[in-house]
Amino acid sequence: MSKKVLIVGGVAGGASAAARLRRLDEHAEIIMFEKGPYISFANCGLPYYIGGSIAERERLLVQTPQGMNDRFRIDVRTHSEVISVDPHQRTVQVRSAERGLYEESYDELILSPGARPVVPDLPGSDHPLIYTVRNIPDIDRIKEKVTAGGGRSAIVIGGGFIGVEMAENLKEAGLNVTLIEGNAQLLAPFDPELAATLAQEMQHKGVNLLFSQRVQGFRSTDRGIGVELGGERLLTADLVILAIGVTPDTAFLQSSGIQLGARGHIAVNEALETNLPHVYAVGDAIEVRDYVHGGKAAIPLAGPANKQGRIVADRIAGLDSVYKGTMGTSVIKIFDMTGASTGSSEKTLKRLGIDYRSIIVHPSSHASYYPGASAIVLKLLFTPEGKVLGAQAVGCEGVEKRIDDIAVTIHFGGHVSDLAELELSYAPPFSSAKDPVNMVGYAAENIVAGRVQSFTYDQLDARIPENSVLLDVRSDLEHRGGHIPGSISIPVDELRGRLNELDPAKEIWVYCQVGFRGYTASQILRQHGYDVRNLSGGYKTYRQAQF
Amino acid sequence: MSKKVLIVGGVAGGASAAARLRRLDEHAEIIMFEKGPYISFANCGLPYYIGGSIAERERLLVQTPQGMNDRFRIDVRTHSEVISVDPHQRTVQVRSAERGLYEESYDELILSPGARPVVPDLPGSDHPLIYTVRNIPDIDRIKEKVTAGGGRSAIVIGGGFIGVEMAENLKEAGLNVTLIEGNAQLLAPFDPELAATLAQEMQHKGVNLLFSQRVQGFRSTDRGIGVELGGERLLTADLVILAIGVTPDTAFLQSSGIQLGARGHIAVNEALETNLPHVYAVGDAIEVRDYVHGGKAAIPLAGPANKQGRIVADRIAGLDSVYKGTMGTSVIKIFDMTGASTGSSEKTLKRLGIDYRSIIVHPSSHASYYPGASAIVLKLLFTPEGKVLGAQAVGCEGVEKRIDDIAVTIHFGGHVSDLAELELSYAPPFSSAKDPVNMVGYAAENIVAGRVQSFTYDQLDARIPENSVLLDVRSDLEHRGGHIPGSISIPVDELRGRLNELDPAKEIWVYCQVGFRGYTASQILRQHGYDVRNLSGGYKTYRQAQF
Ligand SMILES: Cc1cc2nc3c(=O)[nH]c(=O)nc-3n(C[C@H](O)[C@H](O)[C@H](O)COP(=O)(O)OP(=O)(O)OC[C@H]3O[C@@H](n4cnc5c(N)ncnc54)[C@H](O)[C@@H]3O)c2cc1C
Ligand SMILES: Cc1cc2nc3c(=O)[nH]c(=O)nc-3n(C[C@H](O)[C@H](O)[C@H](O)COP(=O)(O)OP(=O)(O)OC[C@H]3O[C@@H](n4cnc5c(N)ncnc54)[C@H](O)[C@@H]3O)c2cc1C
Ligand SMILES: CC(C)(COP(=O)(O)OP(=O)(O)OC[C@H]1O[C@@H](n2cnc3c(N)ncnc32)[C@H](O)[C@@H]1OP(=O)(O)O)[C@@H](O)C(=O)NCCC(=O)NCCS
Ligand SMILES: CC(C)(COP(=O)(O)OP(=O)(O)OC[C@H]1O[C@@H](n2cnc3c(N)ncnc32)[C@H](O)[C@@H]1OP(=O)(O)O)[C@@H](O)C(=O)NCCC(=O)NCCS
Repeated sequence: MSKKVLIVGGVAGGASAAARLRRLDEHAEIIMFEKGPYISFANCGLPYYIGGSIAERERLLVQTPQGMNDRFRIDVRTHSEVISVDPHQRTVQVRSAERGLYEESYDELILSPGARPVVPDLPGSDHPLIYTVRNIPDIDRIKEKVTAGGGRSAIVIGGGFIGVEMAENLKEAGLNVTLIEGNAQLLAPFDPELAATLAQEMQHKGVNLLFSQRVQGFRSTDRGIGVELGGERLLTADLVILAIGVTPDTAFLQSSGIQLGARGHIAVNEALETNLPHVYAVGDAIEVRDYVHGGKAAIPLAGPANKQGRIVADRIAGLDSVYKGTMGTSVIKIFDMTGASTGSSEKTLKRLGIDYRSIIVHPSSHASYYPGASAIVLKLLFTPEGKVLGAQAVGCEGVEKRIDDIAVTIHFGGHVSDLAELELSYAPPFSSAKDPVNMVGYAAENIVAGRVQSFTYDQLDARIPENSVLLDVRSDLEHRGGHIPGSISIPVDELRGRLNELDPAKEIWVYCQVGFRGYTASQILRQHGYDVRNLSGGYKTYRQAQF
Repeated sequence: MSKKVLIVGGVAGGASAAARLRRLDEHAEIIMFEKGPYISFANCGLPYYIGGSIAERERLLVQTPQGMNDRFRIDVRTHSEVISVDPHQRTVQVRSAERGLYEESYDELILSPGARPVVPDLPGSDHPLIYTVRNIPDIDRIKEKVTAGGGRSAIVIGGGFIGVEMAENLKEAGLNVTLIEGNAQLLAPFDPELAATLAQEMQHKGVNLLFSQRVQGFRSTDRGIGVELGGERLLTADLVILAIGVTPDTAFLQSSGIQLGARGHIAVNEALETNLPHVYAVGDAIEVRDYVHGGKAAIPLAGPANKQGRIVADRIAGLDSVYKGTMGTSVIKIFDMTGASTGSSEKTLKRLGIDYRSIIVHPSSHASYYPGASAIVLKLLFTPEGKVLGAQAVGCEGVEKRIDDIAVTIHFGGHVSDLAELELSYAPPFSSAKDPVNMVGYAAENIVAGRVQSFTYDQLDARIPENSVLLDVRSDLEHRGGHIPGSISIPVDELRGRLNELDPAKEIWVYCQVGFRGYTASQILRQHGYDVRNLSGGYKTYRQAQF
């Protein structure tokens, strides 16, 4: 007898599950409920429709109910909200625009309701000029506001991926944009010194950034809407985009007996089964295992949602696929720059008390003698023994390629020496004979082997000037152009001849522009008996972190 | 006591070894011999200096003898050819432009002499208008010929990487270019159906291609130089670039007792030691282990040469690094396209009699709704059990990124299900939620699991029309626009309603445009009891292979 499978949510996780399930089981009855008017839309494309790089609205609709029926015989029901689940009867209750309230029974149930934007409980947070960005109706409203000429300025609240993308795209649409972020940095997956580079790009492109500001409330002004900040400060604009994060859209499950986590995420095992038999869950609504540190994580990204949807279809069709966890590989375009990251950040490792080492290198995106090369800032996190834990990169070209290589390495539980060994494609327009990923592997290997000690920009304050020398090994010209206060200058190429200027009883804290000459200098000094450490990422990272 | 280390060859492998060795050993005496006038030059950049994208000649000189001495205290001796090695005395004999003949003793000897262009033994092959491309003097000669206006047309012989890059760059320099290739395809690492796409790009950009032509000889003509082909055919041009391959530059080792392979490559073990104590070898001159199939391989690429140089330095400094083999990851830019490959090709697997499966997919370089997306042709080779053996891709964007991901997977001995699981970075400008690498993993998983049978374009001839139906499941419009002779048309979305048109006693050979709808159709038919197979890569690959 053929199975009856119900799916709640018709976008990334839900639609992927439906399509895969039909391919595996021609005979199942598959019904997909979507409370909104559209299925299979490109959530991730929404901001670009505002900016105009996606010009036609229809491009956002990847599949239609008709298409899903023609190709996959899926019974797609839009404007149909599942309002409760009864696991004993194996039914769901549906509120349909067309059919009113009704019940539908299931043999298997797949939950992919996703997450909705957090709306804070603040005075005026229901103001009509406040917009959130989750779906097509949301973006239609924003588009209308912006193109009707009713929007010449916007305030974006929240500097996560969606906030930053919206700020970029509102700017591209010609608006005056201010972004307000509660923390001291944008884009939490990045550590501050890398996030700073991305923030700088936004400022260069004309987005006003306000950090460490808590919004107190909203009110109407004669110009439009006012956002109240601490100290009586009021910012006004024609519209506000609220993008301070998402929360799982699981309220309808409260009384179902399905186990939810502290923040409302559905708890699942490796098979993506909930605690109830025949009920599976995927996507933004679930809590997963963090692939790197093994703890619980909720990582609302489309790749994991799509993959989980496919796995659940496999399980229902009798295959034994499992979901092993999410490492959070992600990428964002910010005007002409790219930022990408995977695995754990330094912040996360610190928070969890995991022992780690880090290195920052600044390799060229491709052979520096071939036109168009630009620097990538690449930071690697690894255990003291060298197991790769995470990486982040920013730059203009080839950034996400390197992060993907490292994500693959993490998938296999790889070591920094694997990064050094990887045989990656090289021709001058694409890379260097020592790819940036090899380079960060080399630098990390040297740390793991104890051949070099490094220090980070934020440890400079802990240096005791009496016991140590801060040594700039860049050229005289570079030193005169700007240096870390308190440093003396001996260019690396002169070092061997000027060792007598350095007191062997003192710690030598070396730095150069990006860390490379400092490393060479460290090796010279170490082998002449000095106690030496090198600034990770060099003066460039030091400066960047000042931003 | 400090070691005395001699290095033969001052470019990729040699210079990398020298720099690393100094970092590890401040006290070693390091002498580097280079028979040419320059060290550390960008071999890989040479063609682009002709095309003009590298405008300044100095950009090709990555390091100078002075720089190597200042930074690393390397005693660099250019115009110094090592003409023999005496392993008993532990000396080399050097012919120096400055110092004449002399001997130098060693504790450790590193050989990185590289490979030189093959010059065939044909009438006229010493003609002064024939040029080869290995080093700076070579490229100076070509540049002079081309810019003095003495070159308006060129014939490139050989369609390997260097030949193709030279053809592209001579074209960019404004010359009329013909490329002659002895085989039926360009770029041997690619299988023919992918190489065809790259060849087409060359033709579109105005390079004349002649395949399966053997050059018989060369002679002067009043226009310049004539290249004699079979059947009395003569092609004339102002210059000829000879790029039919390279041969290890190891003649000077003939009487040294160092073991050389059949084609003159130096035999080494994992530690990159030759058969003689204290003699190491790296780079284009050595024979390595093929990382995928374990056989012997000679793969003249800069990445391996650089890595091997570093490993030999490690060994000499007492570290236990080893070289595990080369998989041949490579990439080439051809005008607006990119081709990249890693691991074994189908041709290689056939030649070695290794059992394999393959799949071709045509995913979009990034989300198709975001501007600028283009199709990637991605071919994967794997064992019947799913271990990844190799991959090739061509396209305009994101090609080498996907090949690198697969190269990393091969490094770890990964499976097609790993490709399906990989968590790669996704935002619309960069990829799709199901990355092309995931997609090829999915398609391959289906083959490994026996859920789908596929056939390849070159198996069509073996189909017996009496027992089988060739079924085009694309739209009517697409079918009318061109189809495989003998096929009938039932669009996939109509298939379920028209099963009665298909005889269940016959094999169904399905195809669509790229393989995806054919796969869906296969699943429908299979589950209705048909014996069905799907064309890998679809009509697109079929057409491409006709080229
Ligand atoms: C603006 C924006 C940009 C993004 N950019 C990226 C990006 O670049 N890269 C990336 O990886 N991810 C991105 N994401 C995240 C990505 O879209 C999500 O991770 C993914 O869509 C999650 O899939 P899902 O199936 O869990 O939820 P969704 O795709 O949100 O689908 C859930 C659906 O379920 C419906 N639903 C909810 N409850 C019910 C109910 N009770 N009954 C019926 N239907 C219900 C909802 O209406 C919704 O349509 C972005 C998201 C947004 C909003
Ligand atoms: C035009 C061109 C383009 C290329 N493009 C790419 C590319 O895009 N990607 C890629 O990965 N690879 C590319 N390569 C290949 C890459 O350059 C080589 O793999 C790499 O340089 C090999 O390093 P090696 O140290 O073995 O040899 P080489 O770099 O060739 O260095 C060997 C040196 O040794 C010297 N020598 C030889 N014999 C003696 C002797 N007896 N005494 C003293 N000196 C001696 C030679 O003069 C030579 O300078 C390209 C090569 C060429 C020529
Ligand atoms: C549109 C949608 C329903 C498609 O789902 P889907 O059919 O599973 O996914 P795809 O169209 O990418 O096709 C993947 C399938 O094609 C197969 N395939 C792809 N190319 C193939 C080829 N050339 N030959 C054979 N098979 C191929 C794959 O193996 C896979 O099948 P499988 O899962 O059975 O192994 C779903 O992705 C969706 O709703 N997307 C929009 C929503 C969304 O993801 N939003 C967030 C990101 S913006
Ligand atoms: C120029 C040349 C001598 C440089 O060799 P090199 O010093 O080994 O290589 P790089 O300059 O890339 O530096 C790599 C070193 O810097 C270290 N490094 C790089 N960035 C660093 C950073 N930010 N912090 C600390 N260390 C860093 C790496 O760890 C590595 O050191 P290690 O090998 O001791 O671990 C050599 O590459 C060469 O001759 N190249 C031209 C020839 C050639 O390769 N041709 C073929 C391709 S065109």
